[in-house]
Amino acid sequence: MEEFLAQIDSPKDLEKISADNLYKLAQEIREEIIVNLSNTGGHLASSLGVVELTIALHSVLNSPKDKILWDVGHQSYAHKLLTGRKNKFNTLRQFNGLSGFPKRQESRHDHLDVGHSSTSISAALGIACARDIRGDDETVVAVIGDGALTAGMAFEALNHAGDLAKDLIVILNDNEMSISKNVGAVSNYLDKLRTNPKIHKAKKDVGYLINSIPAFGDQLLKTANKVKNSLKYLLVSGLLFEEFGFTYLGPIDGHNIKVLQEHIKDAKSIGGPVLIHTVTTKGKGYEPAEKEPSKYHGVGPFNIITGEAKNKRTKKTYTDIFSQTLIDLAKEDESIVAITAAMPSGTGLNKFANEYPERFYDVGIAEQHALTLGAGLALNGTKPFVTLYSTFLQRGYDQILHDICIQNLPVKLAIDRAGLVGRDGETHQGVFDYSFLRHLPNMTVMAPKDESELQVMVRTALNHDGPISFRYPRGEVIGVELSETDDILEIGKAETLRQGKDGAILAIGSMVHPALKIASDLAEEGIDLEVVNMRFVKPLDKQLIKNLADRFNLLFTVEENVLQGGFSSAVAEFLVDQNLNVKLKRIALPDEFIEHGSREELLAKYGLDIAGIKAKIRVVMQEG
Amino acid sequence: MEEFLAQIDSPKDLEKISADNLYKLAQEIREEIIVNLSNTGGHLASSLGVVELTIALHSVLNSPKDKILWDVGHQSYAHKLLTGRKNKFNTLRQFNGLSGFPKRQESRHDHLDVGHSSTSISAALGIACARDIRGDDETVVAVIGDGALTAGMAFEALNHAGDLAKDLIVILNDNEMSISKNVGAVSNYLDKLRTNPKIHKAKKDVGYLINSIPAFGDQLLKTANKVKNSLKYLLVSGLLFEEFGFTYLGPIDGHNIKVLQEHIKDAKSIGGPVLIHTVTTKGKGYEPAEKEPSKYHGVGPFNIITGEAKNKRTKKTYTDIFSQTLIDLAKEDESIVAITAAMPSGTGLNKFANEYPERFYDVGIAEQHALTLGAGLALNGTKPFVTLYSTFLQRGYDQILHDICIQNLPVKLAIDRAGLVGRDGETHQGVFDYSFLRHLPNMTVMAPKDESELQVMVRTALNHDGPISFRYPRGEVIGVELSETDDILEIGKAETLRQGKDGAILAIGSMVHPALKIASDLAEEGIDLEVVNMRFVKPLDKQLIKNLADRFNLLFTVEENVLQGGFSSAVAEFLVDQNLNVKLKRIALPDEFIEHGSREELLAKYGLDIAGIKAKIRVVMQEG
Repeated sequence: MEEFLAQIDSPKDLEKISADNLYKLAQEIREEIIVNLSNTGGHLASSLGVVELTIALHSVLNSPKDKILWDVGHQSYAHKLLTGRKNKFNTLRQFNGLSGFPKRQESRHDHLDVGHSSTSISAALGIACARDIRGDDETVVAVIGDGALTAGMAFEALNHAGDLAKDLIVILNDNEMSISKNVGAVSNYLDKLRTNPKIHKAKKDVGYLINSIPAFGDQLLKTANKVKNSLKYLLVSGLLFEEFGFTYLGPIDGHNIKVLQEHIKDAKSIGGPVLIHTVTTKGKGYEPAEKEPSKYHGVGPFNIITGEAKNKRTKKTYTDIFSQTLIDLAKEDESIVAITAAMPSGTGLNKFANEYPERFYDVGIAEQHALTLGAGLALNGTKPFVTLYSTFLQRGYDQILHDICIQNLPVKLAIDRAGLVGRDGETHQGVFDYSFLRHLPNMTVMAPKDESELQVMVRTALNHDGPISFRYPRGEVIGVELSETDDILEIGKAETLRQGKDGAILAIGSMVHPALKIASDLAEEGIDLEVVNMRFVKPLDKQLIKNLADRFNLLFTVEENVLQGGFSSAVAEFLVDQNLNVKLKRIALPDEFIEHGSREELLAKYGLDIAGIKAKIRVVMQEG
Repeated sequence: MEEFLAQIDSPKDLEKISADNLYKLAQEIREEIIVNLSNTGGHLASSLGVVELTIALHSVLNSPKDKILWDVGHQSYAHKLLTGRKNKFNTLRQFNGLSGFPKRQESRHDHLDVGHSSTSISAALGIACARDIRGDDETVVAVIGDGALTAGMAFEALNHAGDLAKDLIVILNDNEMSISKNVGAVSNYLDKLRTNPKIHKAKKDVGYLINSIPAFGDQLLKTANKVKNSLKYLLVSGLLFEEFGFTYLGPIDGHNIKVLQEHIKDAKSIGGPVLIHTVTTKGKGYEPAEKEPSKYHGVGPFNIITGEAKNKRTKKTYTDIFSQTLIDLAKEDESIVAITAAMPSGTGLNKFANEYPERFYDVGIAEQHALTLGAGLALNGTKPFVTLYSTFLQRGYDQILHDICIQNLPVKLAIDRAGLVGRDGETHQGVFDYSFLRHLPNMTVMAPKDESELQVMVRTALNHDGPISFRYPRGEVIGVELSETDDILEIGKAETLRQGKDGAILAIGSMVHPALKIASDLAEEGIDLEVVNMRFVKPLDKQLIKNLADRFNLLFTVEENVLQGGFSSAVAEFLVDQNLNVKLKRIALPDEFIEHGSREELLAKYGLDIAGIKAKIRVVMQEG
């Protein structure tokens, strides 16, 4: 079947394949990706878009000496297939299998662990600076999408790289998308580059200029070639990047291997910072993905023929519930506004946007701005819900602190994908938010036990006059009945869900229902535990904990967050400060980065599934 | 004396003053600022640079309905003088006095609390969005320096603002500086805008051409000139900003009130996002500050005639010791590189830059990039010290986590201005770093007790193969003798400095020497405390703490950080996890934002000075 891919164990093997056959190789790679992902799931559309680019890069460059850095990294599947990992490709994103992102431990052809967007130019520039200090000469390439360019970090790096003038190639992989359609002025600018007919005219003019140069004879040739190199692509079009100090080449067809190869070679010979603008089609070669690239950005297992998901959801997600609740509230309260950072679909806010387009802001991949935009909105009488994934909220830590908390502004942080997110692994686990939010003055930190309580917390956040956050997991809801009241919570008030006499479990968020199940199971073994839904990491329900400490010798905390600085840490601080005479067993994630796998596999590995928690509780109970 | 300033109690009073006399008012404001700051200290040069701009803004706009947001805010003194605060101006930056930054609690003319740079466009855009939702019509203006434009956050906001096309005025206050000379491609671009003498002529003369390639043939010349003309057009028209969707006005003389007023009116009538590029002189009107704007950016009390500081340092600073130690080590180890974000002087790295210009990177106000650049440098065989103030390190939280810690890279974080920084207040206190670093897997967190141990920690960091940080205070060293050995620390190992029998103080960083003094004082009262210099917040010296818990009934922790999630939290977690039967009293800063004042005043207010700590210890000892 795989006539050409079968010959490739490392990028060097590309030499064996003729130029024409490289397109057949590309076709085989696409088939491998599509067939494989129909079983494993993964980032389909992005990876299909860069197959030719990946082949071109590896055929011109000398990896691993030359270093290719993939921004975000979800487009690196072809790279994985060409760098000795094709036999493990069926383990992609599976527990103990290949990562869905570049990973240095996985291959010497991977030079940067990634997952979050817009880091590649900074890292590539650092690698180039170190190269020059060490007197080495490798080529360094960052491949970055147009979506990732909306992040300030990429701009900071472009600004610095243009100034330092190191040899550095940035390949702009322009597919007009991040996960959803891009937004922002830079995106509009790229649109113009792609579509303006003047570009093609100017390219023709410059082509004429270039072709005329040899006519000036040998004496002028050297100078002329310099001029050629500097003027060759100096189009009306790319001056935004030229102003940053980059030589701009393009836009070129990102699916034409020969053109790509020539431009990569040119970029090497021109030297200094060079940006190659390639235009690619997200989902290229798989019709369903080409038609709906946003839907096929990240997929679960799917039917190849129809493109339909194999495992259809039977329940709603937390995201659905959040989204619908906000839409319902926004009907009554016209001051509600919603902000997302390039995740309108992932956060469910696309539905909000349909209902209330004037009150919705998608800022692009720009979490810092999202949060301070929220601060501004709160400063002038509206009620902003800034909706981000837990892992991406990390980008806005200072803005939460400096722009929201210091001013004690009523910005509501809706934190999606909190806790273990599964197959995206290390870079995406949302297991730090309790810890990085709890120590911020003025911040209230909540987590609902289920979808019904999520609704209550959305309302509670709406009514709270200060910074407030609520985090909820990726994926399906528990399936409880939704409440029909308009109740809101008293800030800092926990609820006791089960009475017990041998000790108490203090659970928060996703761990509350498991705690109930555990208590019920252990009751059958003769261990009778009280279960409290803490609801608030901050402020803690201190009175309740004090009462528990008076009544019991043993307390347990359970949370889906690291052990350090989060919920259990708050409880530990309180017990110590009050000198309460009670033993506390803290059950949480360890002080490690958690790899990829299904949520269930990871919970089991780290002892946070029902069996694991039960085992830990039993040990402590036996110790007494 | 103050003929005109005396008439101004609010911006409306500017109407009383004729156009010519506004310059006399400007002169009076300058005198007020210079005379006052010669006593109080403060941000001199920036505030002197925007006196005319401030007058122009307040004479054209209708504050507080119209909203002026000052980026960073250290240039807001003239604004404070014009908005009813001139009688309190002598309390500037003093404990319980006026803040050195805009502060909403201080005046209804202040619309955004600031301190960190580059937040104003995001907040202004949010305010403008809320205005339009509410159907209001106020003018919103963000005044931002060219230095602040290097931060990615400002770019994110420009990108979004250009796209949304709301009425919004951004005034680029271009003084060619942030605190030090600016860096980066955008800065170079602004240089070009400023220095081209033919800007205004060329803007009117669309056909303006330069024939600089006369040797080429006619056809070639035509094409070349086309290219040149496009370039020229770009250079003279502010196309970089136009490409972001802004109408660009300027550059104009930022000290000409009439021209400023006209442009502000024009910007209002043009509508949509408008950028006015004003060129100002930092330190304008005070010769020492005009000559050395970097030195006069932030000053202590000074002699007006000579410009010399009144209170000369008698000791070196921690910054000096860090800088010299790194320079000495870099002599031996050519792989050491240093990175700062627009603070070469403040971090002492200007000296490093003088010695090793090829191994020094000032990235501009771009902390995110600074950290990931460091990651890249570490990935390719060099040893980067990323040197930032504690408060600005907050901007890079995700980069520390995602780009440094996940890959377990040997990036060394030198954290200057840690703990209370004094007169800059809320926005600048470095009291969160223990908390936001401790919960990151792979991170080592140190703090030296004095300058000698700082040297040891710099060496320890150099030798450590993983992410490692050390934080040190603003200001003068203690004055201990510097060690002459090349010792490095064992990671996670504390040192016992004083034996005792009634309990133990576990102190870290700046609190170690005070703890020794306290133990010595209390010994005279018959309280005999052991004192431990913990050195490491992470990893904790657990064995030592266990031994102390076995020996004593009472432990104290003392740290210059918030109570939540930091050093004492780590100790509390350990005691609880081990079920150690010992009482712990945690002494730290409360869960509040700490205002401005001298470090001594603030330590006293929050009970972290020697008297305060002693009092707390006595209470606990009496309780038993």
